Amino acid sequence: MKEQDVKKRFGLVIKNWRKKSGISQDELARHAELHRTYVSDIERGVRNPSLQSIERLAKAFNVSFSTLFQPLEDTEMPSAEIGGSQKGKC
Amino acid sequence: MKEQDVKKRFGLVIKNWRKKSGISQDELARHAELHRTYVSDIERGVRNPSLQSIERLAKAFNVSFSTLFQPLEDTEMPSAEIGGSQKGKC
Repeated sequence: MKEQDVKKRFGLVIKNWRKKSGISQDELARHAELHRTYVSDIERGVRNPSLQSIERLAKAFNVSFSTLFQPLEDTEMPSAEIGGSQKGKC
Repeated sequence: MKEQDVKKRFGLVIKNWRKKSGISQDELARHAELHRTYVSDIERGVRNPSLQSIERLAKAFNVSFSTLFQPLEDTEMPSAEIGGSQKGKC
């Protein structure tokens, strides 16, 4: 199974958070202080956002990084490299 | 209280994950397929890593994004923008 690109998966996560918040891309862009087309590109999975941009999105949704990324887990298939998996701690 | 830059906080998180894994920066760089100086810069908090680089680090530690970011929560102070906080769900 080919793993879906992380940019695409993250884009869907952001779109879902935005829908859940009941706001438009314009509103999200304003809250996150990002350009509207940048937000649109992130949702389409064609951008590789930086840590600082991700932080702005998390703050706009008023969630922590961990919570922001939680919906990504279902589609995530980390390869085993070092030590054991930390998934499913909760 | 001035919030510490997210790059600095993330750098400390990565350093802690690396120490916990008992590996050197060289080894982490190799596992994550990133340049050694890039890993060093991330740990020093002078880089703003992209989503794809963050994914490589998470995979190198064999943890999910959420788990990778978990230690950051303690120092995080998200501003209230939209809706209620999702923190502390677990």
